[in-house]
Amino acid sequence: MPAAAVYAPTVVIENFYPCIEGGRHAIKRIVGEPLELWCDIFTDGHVVMSAVLKWRLIGTKRWFEAPMQLVENDRWHGQCSFESPGRWEYAVEAWSDTFKGWKKTFPVRVQAHDPDVPVEALDGARLLREAAQRARAAGAPDCATQIEDVADLLTSLPPQEVMEVLLSAELQKLMDVYADRALSTTSEPLKVIVERERARFSAWYEFFPRNAEGRADKHSTFRDCLPRLDDAKAMGFDTIYFPPIHPIGVTARKGKNNTLIAYDGDVGSPWAIGGPAGGHRDVEPALGTVEDFVWLVGEAQKRGLEIALDFAINCSPDHPYVKAHPDWFYQRPDGSIRYAENPPKKYQDIYPLNFHCADWKNLWRELIDVVLFWVDKGVKIFRVDNPHTKPVSFWEELISSVHRKHPDIIFLAEAFTKPKMMQVLGKIGFTQSYTYFTWREDKAGLTEYAKELTEGDMRWYYRANFWPNTPDILPFYLQNAPSSIFRLRAALASTLTPTWGMYSGYELCENQPLPGKEEYLDSEKFQLRNRDHNAPGNIKGFIARLNNIRRDNAALHLYDNLTFHHASHSQIICYSKVTPDKRNRILCIISLDGIGNAAGTVHLDLGALGLDASKPYRVNDLMHGHSYEWSGSENYVELNPAGTSMHIFRVEQ
Amino acid sequence: MPAAAVYAPTVVIENFYPCIEGGRHAIKRIVGEPLELWCDIFTDGHVVMSAVLKWRLIGTKRWFEAPMQLVENDRWHGQCSFESPGRWEYAVEAWSDTFKGWKKTFPVRVQAHDPDVPVEALDGARLLREAAQRARAAGAPDCATQIEDVADLLTSLPPQEVMEVLLSAELQKLMDVYADRALSTTSEPLKVIVERERARFSAWYEFFPRNAEGRADKHSTFRDCLPRLDDAKAMGFDTIYFPPIHPIGVTARKGKNNTLIAYDGDVGSPWAIGGPAGGHRDVEPALGTVEDFVWLVGEAQKRGLEIALDFAINCSPDHPYVKAHPDWFYQRPDGSIRYAENPPKKYQDIYPLNFHCADWKNLWRELIDVVLFWVDKGVKIFRVDNPHTKPVSFWEELISSVHRKHPDIIFLAEAFTKPKMMQVLGKIGFTQSYTYFTWREDKAGLTEYAKELTEGDMRWYYRANFWPNTPDILPFYLQNAPSSIFRLRAALASTLTPTWGMYSGYELCENQPLPGKEEYLDSEKFQLRNRDHNAPGNIKGFIARLNNIRRDNAALHLYDNLTFHHASHSQIICYSKVTPDKRNRILCIISLDGIGNAAGTVHLDLGALGLDASKPYRVNDLMHGHSYEWSGSENYVELNPAGTSMHIFRVEQ
Repeated sequence: MPAAAVYAPTVVIENFYPCIEGGRHAIKRIVGEPLELWCDIFTDGHVVMSAVLKWRLIGTKRWFEAPMQLVENDRWHGQCSFESPGRWEYAVEAWSDTFKGWKKTFPVRVQAHDPDVPVEALDGARLLREAAQRARAAGAPDCATQIEDVADLLTSLPPQEVMEVLLSAELQKLMDVYADRALSTTSEPLKVIVERERARFSAWYEFFPRNAEGRADKHSTFRDCLPRLDDAKAMGFDTIYFPPIHPIGVTARKGKNNTLIAYDGDVGSPWAIGGPAGGHRDVEPALGTVEDFVWLVGEAQKRGLEIALDFAINCSPDHPYVKAHPDWFYQRPDGSIRYAENPPKKYQDIYPLNFHCADWKNLWRELIDVVLFWVDKGVKIFRVDNPHTKPVSFWEELISSVHRKHPDIIFLAEAFTKPKMMQVLGKIGFTQSYTYFTWREDKAGLTEYAKELTEGDMRWYYRANFWPNTPDILPFYLQNAPSSIFRLRAALASTLTPTWGMYSGYELCENQPLPGKEEYLDSEKFQLRNRDHNAPGNIKGFIARLNNIRRDNAALHLYDNLTFHHASHSQIICYSKVTPDKRNRILCIISLDGIGNAAGTVHLDLGALGLDASKPYRVNDLMHGHSYEWSGSENYVELNPAGTSMHIFRVEQ
Repeated sequence: MPAAAVYAPTVVIENFYPCIEGGRHAIKRIVGEPLELWCDIFTDGHVVMSAVLKWRLIGTKRWFEAPMQLVENDRWHGQCSFESPGRWEYAVEAWSDTFKGWKKTFPVRVQAHDPDVPVEALDGARLLREAAQRARAAGAPDCATQIEDVADLLTSLPPQEVMEVLLSAELQKLMDVYADRALSTTSEPLKVIVERERARFSAWYEFFPRNAEGRADKHSTFRDCLPRLDDAKAMGFDTIYFPPIHPIGVTARKGKNNTLIAYDGDVGSPWAIGGPAGGHRDVEPALGTVEDFVWLVGEAQKRGLEIALDFAINCSPDHPYVKAHPDWFYQRPDGSIRYAENPPKKYQDIYPLNFHCADWKNLWRELIDVVLFWVDKGVKIFRVDNPHTKPVSFWEELISSVHRKHPDIIFLAEAFTKPKMMQVLGKIGFTQSYTYFTWREDKAGLTEYAKELTEGDMRWYYRANFWPNTPDILPFYLQNAPSSIFRLRAALASTLTPTWGMYSGYELCENQPLPGKEEYLDSEKFQLRNRDHNAPGNIKGFIARLNNIRRDNAALHLYDNLTFHHASHSQIICYSKVTPDKRNRILCIISLDGIGNAAGTVHLDLGALGLDASKPYRVNDLMHGHSYEWSGSENYVELNPAGTSMHIFRVEQ
């Protein structure tokens, strides 16, 4: 590119799609995933434009490039993909293509017996010879000679006899490679965060390692976790997420069921981090040691599993930071440190950090170093606790700092808050995000929300991770609910988006709430519990089947390929996911009525399914093994919670 | 504002509306016209936000500011206006308001008998005393004392007794002025081009000064133009626009009706600029001298008229630039200069300039200086010929350079080309633009187009100037058309947008085309013509009435206050324009059928008209003087081309 000062911009390149906040934020892609780009490209006068899409890893010099195509009305389209994880940038370079312009008018002149044909032939020869020079300078003397040969013909033969070679695709291909871009314009680069496959497609299983054995009378350790890993693996999960594993505070420790008083033996909340045994770089002694954890990470790897850690920036009053850096906290006028509160509620077991204290740079550096410490121990996935209560600019700094050396690290934002904060955390770099799925129950709510996530601009930066439950949330409709409802919520979570997760106990249909609250009774957050991991009525086989269907069907690995289809019954939801090549087509028809029967017609958008409407097609139920021949867009289904409560069809034609 | 390095951004401020291309382009306002701004503002944690909209003339230091209000869901709104023409900028500054946050929780604590009340009172007193310090530093010792008094009360009296003064509006007002903004975040400034009233509201009348007397046998001069000025003034126009007034080329001069051969006495096209008498700084000798022109500008001013010049960057082969700067043009391989062409069409009377030649900086400077030369002669309005065939970056440079010293200069873009080029010329600074109105004939086409211009994003940067005809365009439906059609097109042009224009002859319903073309027969572009300016059948009185209605009704001075109402008849179009205070309401009901009758019901959106649906209202026909009492939303109208072919009602209730 010539320096900006040499000449003013010659081409207008604008109105990019996608584009987040005028380019302020990066979009996200997976390695190898196509990026389709549209923008307006035009210039003054009657000229022929050429344009290329260019991309490179930020910090490197070499641009990759691909030609762009005019769609209509000055709108252009290009496509690229990225070969490795990291921060990439892309731009559009466009120019008035003098050779294409000449080639467009020269035959018209020849046909019109324009007296200027000889001088125009000279001009064409000049354009060719200049291209040949560029080819030679680029080390392609053969190409140069080929082009020069055409120039020679043009100045020696009657124009009619040169026309075929002039208009040949071969010549144009050469001229494209050595086009005159001296007066080209390049757009301001836009950014893209390129991540590994698991950033988009994964199944999370959360459990408390301290309760791995399911014994109220015994604190489990990392060494006790292998059966849980095996069980999760058997259910088809690939990511094991642990609540914080660090030493738990003693001062103002919470008792069972979040009561203010902890009795002897109460294990406390893992989110109250920091105690006599240390802080964020240490491990709760009752769980074992850092070495034990590293051993477990290795055992997980052997099973094809990754362990995700919780990154919760909560300090208990016993956290080492409190003594070492009291200035990192909020001081009250009486000299005490301010604890967390939402008046009149007080959380005396937590001291919030002051991210804008005078020493903020060291504080931020320390927190980033904590993440890098665990990365060094083999952790590549972090579930970030309550990111919306820390500065957005801090997360942007943390994630970009970590990604600079480790572009394969995945960050899941656990922000249950207002929409714009949740969105901005995706925009500034969080790989995945929790969602409102947990509270979207009816057909309209589910449809509208899934469309918002997968059809609107959010799909460029926000990867939804659907959870039917979490340790913090037992939603009202799961409370005391039958297993049919647990099944349908898991089916929705695992097929509407390519990433989902569940908190252990879900597979056992644990459904007892703290009365009047959306929380579990006797929550593992505050105590050890007895649990039979193979209790009768469990849906582990169902979960395993769901995850296997996901694994085997590429359409379910993609994010924004979701289409809803009309179903006549108010409780039947119908949607499909199809690969771009239409070779894998999944059609989900799920009854949202966990109690009664639901029957009715589904009206399929056959075009979206890539089906030929004139021919029958087979729908193979991957959940139950049945297979039906269907034809046309309308077909009848009968669903009931006791038997077939859902179809997950693979469609073949 | 603190320097950026002191701390990281604390607040997210984004998703601005309006915002053109992520802030790359300025929006436009008129002096005093409100700018309404929306954006998302939020930060981490549970805090109370405050935000101000700030604005200043670019290059000056002092920010004006106004508080912003939360609308809902982190969306904020602010409003400002600008006191003088020029390039302004505006930004949003937002911060977590520590005092408001404290004030929100303190009463809750008091009510809950929180043991922390005394320490929280100390904290509140600290916030107050810090504000007092800021007040004192700002030279407001009285305010400081007032605030300190509250701090003293807070630390000496029981909290219940201080609550009233703490929660008082007076205290909050003071605390708003001296708020703690040490950790505020300010958005990147956005730009606005502020212009004088005539940029939005004007009526243009175009005529060829050389034909001012309407005599085919005599070339008129500037000194002959006064009757035309008086006539235009009487018709209510305020802007007189002249085609180029410069010396006309001799080489390859075009003959009558654009023929290739000019005979003795053929005057040539004024757009082929440059001859023995000079170039763009000179005047065609047959019109008089630069001094004569300056005299005419003065005469126009005396009549409240402005003269707009045509800025056409066309050089005839006789232009002085050709000899002085042959390098500014395109050279052909045989050493000749390339003339304009659109093969196989040739325009040998015009040499295009090469805006990207090696000496481009001097070329651009020269062209900018030409505009400044005429500004110096009293011209404040330029109609720019074919801007879409010169670089967009050139116009951006030209307009901003001229505006730097002369923010009152108006530029009208004469670009009839594809939509995106027309739009970008508005974005980069053209005050007004020609439109496709000339070819929008039916109800659907007119409605859709007027909505696109006045309801979408274009309204922020694109000011449409509606012309029913130009010297280049006699649209097909005006060809051989009766005066009723000329009347209805003028009515549409003059009421749909606040700026319109017509080319002389329109008021005489001149309707003879060059056969098969959208052009005038015996066009004034190439010859002198006989014309009786008071020929029978003229619609000068009608035009005068239109312009007077426009002048007297503020609703017609505004741009984006257009609302369409349903009319049952396919040929009746109905729309209204209302001032924001609803004091001036204009309702236009126009038959698009210039031949037959049209009668039917109009269904008015009474809310848009600011009418109370439960009461009758009067509609006073400003065109014909009739008055009717209407009630409800449905009313019947009968229109016919011979009598009442349109209503322009002023609505009163």
